[in-house]
Amino acid sequence: MDDDMEGGSLGPYQERPRTFPNMRTKPYTPLVMFTWIFRLLMRINSRVLLVLLILGLGVLFYIGAITSPTIVFVYTVCIVSFFVSIYLTKWVLSKDEGPPEMVQISEAIRDGAEGFFRTQYGTISKMAVLLGLVILIIYLLRSTSPQQESSGLGRAATAYITVASFLLGAICSGIAGYVGMWVSVRANVRVSSAARRSAREALQIAVRAGGFSALVVVGMAVLGIAILYSTFYVWLGVDSTGSTKITDLPLLLVGYGFGASFVALFAQLGGGIYTKAADVGADLVGKVEQGIPEDDPRNPAVIADLVGDNVGDCAARGADLFESIAAEIISAMILGGTMAQRCKIEDPSGFILFPLVVHSFDLVISSVGIFSIRNTRGSGAIGVLEDPMAILQKGYSVTILLAVVTFGLSTRWMLYTEQAPSAWLNFALCGLVGIITAYLFVCITKYYTDYKHEPVRTLALASSTGHGTNIIAGVSLGLESTALPVLVISVSIVSAYWLGQTSGLVDESGSPTGGLFGTAVATMGMLSTAAYVLTMDMFGPIADNAGGIVEMSQQPESVREITDVLDAVGNTTKATTKGFAIGSAALASFLLFSAYMDEVGSFAHIKFHQVDIAIPEVFIGGLLGSMLIFLFSAWACAAVGRTAQEVVNEVRRQFIERPGIMVRTDYKEKPDYGRCVSIVASASLREMIKPGALAIISPIVVGNFLLPSLLRSSIVFRVLGYYTGQPLLGAKVVASMLMFATVSGILMALFLNTAGGAWDNAKKYIETGALGGKGSECHKAAVTGDTVGDPFKDTAGPSLHVLIKMLATITLVMAPVFL
Amino acid sequence: MDDDMEGGSLGPYQERPRTFPNMRTKPYTPLVMFTWIFRLLMRINSRVLLVLLILGLGVLFYIGAITSPTIVFVYTVCIVSFFVSIYLTKWVLSKDEGPPEMVQISEAIRDGAEGFFRTQYGTISKMAVLLGLVILIIYLLRSTSPQQESSGLGRAATAYITVASFLLGAICSGIAGYVGMWVSVRANVRVSSAARRSAREALQIAVRAGGFSALVVVGMAVLGIAILYSTFYVWLGVDSTGSTKITDLPLLLVGYGFGASFVALFAQLGGGIYTKAADVGADLVGKVEQGIPEDDPRNPAVIADLVGDNVGDCAARGADLFESIAAEIISAMILGGTMAQRCKIEDPSGFILFPLVVHSFDLVISSVGIFSIRNTRGSGAIGVLEDPMAILQKGYSVTILLAVVTFGLSTRWMLYTEQAPSAWLNFALCGLVGIITAYLFVCITKYYTDYKHEPVRTLALASSTGHGTNIIAGVSLGLESTALPVLVISVSIVSAYWLGQTSGLVDESGSPTGGLFGTAVATMGMLSTAAYVLTMDMFGPIADNAGGIVEMSQQPESVREITDVLDAVGNTTKATTKGFAIGSAALASFLLFSAYMDEVGSFAHIKFHQVDIAIPEVFIGGLLGSMLIFLFSAWACAAVGRTAQEVVNEVRRQFIERPGIMVRTDYKEKPDYGRCVSIVASASLREMIKPGALAIISPIVVGNFLLPSLLRSSIVFRVLGYYTGQPLLGAKVVASMLMFATVSGILMALFLNTAGGAWDNAKKYIETGALGGKGSECHKAAVTGDTVGDPFKDTAGPSLHVLIKMLATITLVMAPVFL
Repeated sequence: MDDDMEGGSLGPYQERPRTFPNMRTKPYTPLVMFTWIFRLLMRINSRVLLVLLILGLGVLFYIGAITSPTIVFVYTVCIVSFFVSIYLTKWVLSKDEGPPEMVQISEAIRDGAEGFFRTQYGTISKMAVLLGLVILIIYLLRSTSPQQESSGLGRAATAYITVASFLLGAICSGIAGYVGMWVSVRANVRVSSAARRSAREALQIAVRAGGFSALVVVGMAVLGIAILYSTFYVWLGVDSTGSTKITDLPLLLVGYGFGASFVALFAQLGGGIYTKAADVGADLVGKVEQGIPEDDPRNPAVIADLVGDNVGDCAARGADLFESIAAEIISAMILGGTMAQRCKIEDPSGFILFPLVVHSFDLVISSVGIFSIRNTRGSGAIGVLEDPMAILQKGYSVTILLAVVTFGLSTRWMLYTEQAPSAWLNFALCGLVGIITAYLFVCITKYYTDYKHEPVRTLALASSTGHGTNIIAGVSLGLESTALPVLVISVSIVSAYWLGQTSGLVDESGSPTGGLFGTAVATMGMLSTAAYVLTMDMFGPIADNAGGIVEMSQQPESVREITDVLDAVGNTTKATTKGFAIGSAALASFLLFSAYMDEVGSFAHIKFHQVDIAIPEVFIGGLLGSMLIFLFSAWACAAVGRTAQEVVNEVRRQFIERPGIMVRTDYKEKPDYGRCVSIVASASLREMIKPGALAIISPIVVGNFLLPSLLRSSIVFRVLGYYTGQPLLGAKVVASMLMFATVSGILMALFLNTAGGAWDNAKKYIETGALGGKGSECHKAAVTGDTVGDPFKDTAGPSLHVLIKMLATITLVMAPVFL
Repeated sequence: MDDDMEGGSLGPYQERPRTFPNMRTKPYTPLVMFTWIFRLLMRINSRVLLVLLILGLGVLFYIGAITSPTIVFVYTVCIVSFFVSIYLTKWVLSKDEGPPEMVQISEAIRDGAEGFFRTQYGTISKMAVLLGLVILIIYLLRSTSPQQESSGLGRAATAYITVASFLLGAICSGIAGYVGMWVSVRANVRVSSAARRSAREALQIAVRAGGFSALVVVGMAVLGIAILYSTFYVWLGVDSTGSTKITDLPLLLVGYGFGASFVALFAQLGGGIYTKAADVGADLVGKVEQGIPEDDPRNPAVIADLVGDNVGDCAARGADLFESIAAEIISAMILGGTMAQRCKIEDPSGFILFPLVVHSFDLVISSVGIFSIRNTRGSGAIGVLEDPMAILQKGYSVTILLAVVTFGLSTRWMLYTEQAPSAWLNFALCGLVGIITAYLFVCITKYYTDYKHEPVRTLALASSTGHGTNIIAGVSLGLESTALPVLVISVSIVSAYWLGQTSGLVDESGSPTGGLFGTAVATMGMLSTAAYVLTMDMFGPIADNAGGIVEMSQQPESVREITDVLDAVGNTTKATTKGFAIGSAALASFLLFSAYMDEVGSFAHIKFHQVDIAIPEVFIGGLLGSMLIFLFSAWACAAVGRTAQEVVNEVRRQFIERPGIMVRTDYKEKPDYGRCVSIVASASLREMIKPGALAIISPIVVGNFLLPSLLRSSIVFRVLGYYTGQPLLGAKVVASMLMFATVSGILMALFLNTAGGAWDNAKKYIETGALGGKGSECHKAAVTGDTVGDPFKDTAGPSLHVLIKMLATITLVMAPVFL
């Protein structure tokens, strides 16, 4: 009896094989290519592997050396940063995992997360293969561009290249997600264990674990593109007479970006639905109805909630940022190439490879930033709770300062041209505009979501008059918070464009052409600290999980306090990096849009420079584009709502059928965590399909790819275009759809992210004791707000970031079919 | 003591002069022009007045006869419909007002409503005069168009004409609002009194009262434009050599539309904030905290709530629809004129005056529809409760059928031209497209907001798992509900455009030009039953008020049942007419946008046919336009939230300081209704300024009207335009802003209206006894949803309808300054 009481809280995990039956027995991975490869690699002798690796690297560097010295530089930095990340993992894994009860909880989380990851990516990989086939067929049937005809790059070659890039992008995106989750499920328990000793050590572990996946994600994006670029360069014999021109090369990489965003979209949707359905379900019954604290072991949905942090925040955000960087690099390469060609610059490779160099420096300076957060053992501060936010901010400041310097160096190195000797300076200023924009975005998000400032306090005050006024205030706060970011983005687009135009680069007719590339450089400036920002972002869910483990394993209050502080900081960093992500998505989409117009123009053999929204069909394209955003958000939120209702009913059922769960001193009856995990897992897989399919299919339907016999009604745009003698009407309608969707998407994402973050922190503010504190009516209203904000900020909002870029890449890949 | 008990519930009204001191003593109307005129008229002998009236009519008809026989027809119909509306008023006023307790309550409501109306319109009229001066200055400083130069219509004449039209539009809009409120505060008590006798009679009174204001509103819009048109026609000597051409005449009327939308915007904002702040405040304390029913006399905010129905729903909706019709008529006239000119049609007056004819027929057929709802006394159905929705629907069906017929007749009469003998048939089909669109909009709104259908039932079910899931489900329902209307609008724009293009009307070069006019005709088709729709809309708040009076005067349950049914029907009709309003706003804005481009083109002496969103500045204009919608909605919702919090605090204070209020059998202590009324009134006047000013100022700032020395930063667009040699850049940026704002505005308004309506009816569905019924946890969650939905559907949503059209008219009036 006594024994039972002591081990009570751990009981469920000892029976784990029974409580997670359907997470373990099902054959999960029927078709996941890369896990097969992984298994194959595992079987080979490690020495053979090493030899193979060295050989591969040799080939890589050989190809790189042929292409350009810049590529060799990029390879070197990426490989060094992989070694750095391996060091970081070893360092994190060398930390102790704490007492057995922590290990058991952590193992349950790991099982749930890896099980879901396998199922989810199994589904995604099947869809990716299918879509790859569709792309192959389209490309085999499409017409070729004049450049390709002249270079002899046939229809089939283009098709295989595009599909191969697509699949590589998809696989890399999957790996990026897996890496993020892999480290977080291992670091969480080590952070909780370290929290028993020192706050600083816990912080350091969480940061280094986040840094590991950040370096891998960014490094892989850069390396993948560099490998593809140099392979194509050598294979196609670029720049020998009659072959593909170097400035056309970046267009072949578009598939990579599309593959990355395709996987990221489903990863974000599935993960986002999982994490928030579990969270909302757990909170509604646990916190609101039963009044037990968050992460209490008596709540049957608590393990599902903790699993969700890993699959939703870590895995999905890894894939998201991977995709952001890939899309941004490729679009900037395309624009750089186009501009270099127009200005007749002799060696355009500098303009094309510039983004790769910027991100190589990003790896270096972010590593410096990560290592600047050190355990100050010996300086007398052991165990003392400093403000972790200040520490992270200090690291960020270091990184930003370094970014300004390295960005200037990169522009001088890559963008100096004799035709316009001062152009590099203008572009360096564009980069500065980008860096400042990123910084302002972070500040604005902080202003609207941090409870130190007016807006969240007003929101908290609105909770005191009830649930209704709290929601109204939160919605209006979120809607209002779109204004400043839009003004900042507007100013930065115009000023970067202007700096580019005045750079002195002119085309044959003497008119300035650097404007768009200026915007591209600003985007790169914004993303020039991406690895550090991703580190801060990953930090959040790891700290959150560590807090959960501490609570569930019933550690003393002092330990919980440390993880609570880390968790709160994680919330702020998560919110601010979302602002960062949406800002860069806005800029990247604008670039991709221009790239799309170039691409269509080159296929149609017509100049395609304007999208005239005064034409009714084009206007309607815009209307449909904006509508797509609303519908997508609706379905994403509804998916969370529905799944959460299932969780609520299951948790209520368990509490009713097993009243013993709630008796804390006894723990005779244990909640069935496994059922909640499997309910959430299967529901989120089911629910991610509808919005995802909407996002992929609608631009194709609007732009009219479908066979005429199948969908006569949808052919209306092309028929009209034919009828009125406007051959590009279909392409224009898609372009307008894209632009309106981007604009509405940015605003909607800002609204959802900020409102969600503000509600969360208003609740936290009240929990500090303000306005009646925990348990008051005011707190209950604030919890309602937080619940509503959950799907806003962690499902619909981040999915919209990905959606915006995916729409841009899908139209780019599908460009030939919109003619 | 006994006496006190019996008269208890009426006590407060006997002390009315004390309880509404600040509603009566303040000198309210310092500058309202038309109330002065009204007073002046009151002092004149009625016979003199009659003679003056007849003389005026004579002049009117004389001018009309010179202009066109069509104008005489329009005059006749309008004047007859005014007599019909006078008959309707007399009929309504001849009904009894019921027992004295009802009369007293009704007087309190009337006092509150008229007091607020006076203050509100005092403020609005001051702003209107100010804005009129601004417009005058702009027009006196601007350049003139080539047509004007050739016609000798000088700068000053244009300026005075525009300002006079603006002020006339503003005054008429104010009268429209006043009429709506005037009749509703008189009809409400008569409906409650009639409800004691027969449901059918109560229904009939409410319908006829609504019909009165509908006829006045529509008639005034048509008559105002007809008078302006014929006056200008005669004054300017149109079509004599060297004078203004008839096709340029409609452009002079633009000021009328802007005046109307200017007043409507503030009327809707002020009224919307008033009604919903009172409603939310009353519900949050009364229903949620104290558990007393709606409209209970013990609630201190109940009179403010009832006043709100009149100033918010009746007055504001009257101004809103007036403005819709005026804007739509003017834009259609402009497009008709432009097209007739391009096609070199000999007598273009048919195309220009067509909208006036359509709306004259609207008056006729809607009157038939209104009179088709009769008291079936003698048919044996006295007092039996039929389904009032079915009765209203039957009237609507009659009206729609007649509309199809009269629309066909009008097209044949007005649009027949020898150049394209079958064109009128195509345009008749466009009208049919419009009528079908209106019908589909009504159906879609009903599907999403009526609890007989799936969506609201799912929403109600989501309430059973808590406040949070209810809100999430409501938000996603609202977001999802934007999809179908957008598809319908898209199809109708394209098909009307196509019908217009294929009508056979060609310009000099032989290319088809009727497309845009086809869209215009579809819009007219949509609005061809406007008067009946407005009647159904006005019906809602009158029934709602009647219910309130019945509840407050403590009538027997059976009477309350009758008004409850009428109230529920009113909710549905209100929701559906909002769908109708947003659909017509979408179409009208598209027309106004084209008119704007024509106007700018004619001033700039350049063809202005495209708005190219691939230019960064134009893209940013769009971004800012969409942002404007988000910010405006935020401020409108926040205004309600803030004011409601004030009401909550006041009501809580009264309950605490006067505990006797809640003792129902006693009523020793009476709530101070007057304080709530004055709190809401002053707060809503204060709060309407910020969003209103935003709407008016932002297009001017973006388009850069402001003096360069004042706002160098805002001049950026024009400077850029100058710099890059694009003279129309400023105008394009404004156009793009307008288009993006329209698209986002339509979607946002659909979202807000539908979500609000669905929440309201989900609550009503639960109140029918489903899912636990009144008082259950589920019901509480549903009430929260309803509270959130209130500012969505009655403040922000309807204000957006007006905002969209106001943006279009303001840019049209300000067109010359965007060059």
